[in-house]
Amino acid sequence: MQAVEISGAGGPEVLKPATRPVPSAGANEILVKVAFAGINGPDLMQRRGLYPPPKGASDLLGLEISGEVAAVGDGVTRWHVGDRVCALTNGGGYAEYCAVLADHCLPIPDGLGLREAASLPETFFTIWSNIFMTAGLSAGETFLVHGGAGGIGTTAIQLGKAFGATVVATDSPGERCDFCSDLGADRVVDYDAEDFVAVVRDTYGGADVILDIVGGPYIARNIKAAKPDGRIVQLAFARGAEVTVDLMPIMLKRLTYTGSTLRSRPDAFKTEVARQLEERVWPLFAEDRLKPVVDKVLPLAEAAEAHRLMESATHKGKILLAC
Amino acid sequence: MQAVEISGAGGPEVLKPATRPVPSAGANEILVKVAFAGINGPDLMQRRGLYPPPKGASDLLGLEISGEVAAVGDGVTRWHVGDRVCALTNGGGYAEYCAVLADHCLPIPDGLGLREAASLPETFFTIWSNIFMTAGLSAGETFLVHGGAGGIGTTAIQLGKAFGATVVATDSPGERCDFCSDLGADRVVDYDAEDFVAVVRDTYGGADVILDIVGGPYIARNIKAAKPDGRIVQLAFARGAEVTVDLMPIMLKRLTYTGSTLRSRPDAFKTEVARQLEERVWPLFAEDRLKPVVDKVLPLAEAAEAHRLMESATHKGKILLAC
Repeated sequence: MQAVEISGAGGPEVLKPATRPVPSAGANEILVKVAFAGINGPDLMQRRGLYPPPKGASDLLGLEISGEVAAVGDGVTRWHVGDRVCALTNGGGYAEYCAVLADHCLPIPDGLGLREAASLPETFFTIWSNIFMTAGLSAGETFLVHGGAGGIGTTAIQLGKAFGATVVATDSPGERCDFCSDLGADRVVDYDAEDFVAVVRDTYGGADVILDIVGGPYIARNIKAAKPDGRIVQLAFARGAEVTVDLMPIMLKRLTYTGSTLRSRPDAFKTEVARQLEERVWPLFAEDRLKPVVDKVLPLAEAAEAHRLMESATHKGKILLAC
Repeated sequence: MQAVEISGAGGPEVLKPATRPVPSAGANEILVKVAFAGINGPDLMQRRGLYPPPKGASDLLGLEISGEVAAVGDGVTRWHVGDRVCALTNGGGYAEYCAVLADHCLPIPDGLGLREAASLPETFFTIWSNIFMTAGLSAGETFLVHGGAGGIGTTAIQLGKAFGATVVATDSPGERCDFCSDLGADRVVDYDAEDFVAVVRDTYGGADVILDIVGGPYIARNIKAAKPDGRIVQLAFARGAEVTVDLMPIMLKRLTYTGSTLRSRPDAFKTEVARQLEERVWPLFAEDRLKPVVDKVLPLAEAAEAHRLMESATHKGKILLAC
């Protein structure tokens, strides 16, 4: 089959088309004929050699896919050859075929095509598990989302609104801020022009839940912006993780500071996330209360170009590969 | 009535005997004829002027008491004049009488006297709420307790063991380390001689839950000592809260870093803690699975001396005043 492999740690140019054997569906797995694969932040880290794949995982990039079931492994009862699915993978999505755990697959939401469905798994598993299951965001709470126009951010804004939170999003001025408004954010903060701490405290009395991918100087500011009993979730540290910070408010305001990476979660946890997504979130697409946000689709062979686009941070929503 | 008041922010010498009117039991309150009052860390902070009492609270120190019910306010059905109780107060314990919310009172555990019972509320409310309700310590997990021989530490070690955790305690060499062993700690770390990070990681693969009152350089070390999915609870910052620290492991290990102060918790939360303590913890005293740890009892008029003893940090367990 055709695939794109990492010829050596480095820039986007290290991504090279290659021919690989079609993987087989092991026990409890299905083999998917990949239609589209999503590009995610961890892919860039892995390409640079900073995020090695876990033991036993494919060395190919690609953490989410959509496509048609081409074969089913032992023990799989739910899926059949020809079914259309989207899936969270353990790597291997930048290819014509990918083997995935059957329990990490979901049906294509009603009303969506394979293209849109490929954009969902990574960010929906991430936001649902961190913001709803762990941080317990609930209706009526204030939810501060940094980087609102990115892949993680667009999902966070939409899920926050769908479940009744007041959403404040930060991003760069102009098009990206406007995009956050279009997605339903109640208040958008242009981070060049306004102080999000002041906005959130003055307008909403602080944030109940904060989703951060920036880190660095944002860490102390998030602690200031949080309400008593607030929860701060760190999903990346774009501006660094080593900081000098006064942690006293963690105790005085009873804050919870936590974070995670999705790939390292145990399989059983991901299965539970998939179950909750199918039950509570997937129906919202048919009701038009959620919409996938696809910025651009490039052919698999142009994965390097897709990475360049991702690194420019000018995209709004997901970048996909047509495999 | 006799009481001890703070004549001005400062050292133990600012604590002066004084005569005050007997408080009255408001709605949902009871008036307790105080037998014993416990001394706690926040008392020292308040005496120094660093921890002002919340609005509406007594200006007198004393966050926990035992004694006999002298009067009941409107709406109180559970308690009657003459009942013996122990209680979490909102201040005012360093006195002959103290008014407390009826829902924050508990019976004297079977087999204990008023003296022992006065030593329980502050640390048992604190450990139960933070370590069991929030951090979810469960049987089979490893629980690292810093300052194991202090008031908070002795309660943490005993509750950890009573509910099936493996307990590692740190404290200063000699008597205090020995005392942690006597209380049931599975492993005691003399912090002058051993690195608790190495001990916990090498022997137990890390800690699931960490209780810290030290802060400062311990913060980065706690993050290193924690297992994946570990929870770190900060209840004081004896060595400072402003630190330079690498927070990346919070994300990579999915840690939860949190903390609280007991006094600022809402009344309804304290009521729920009291309910759980009575149901799940109080019976363990009669079964000899928990024992109160009283270091010394001084007369109310010697509160200044009791504070000196507390500040020397040579005590093991609680210091009480006989009121």
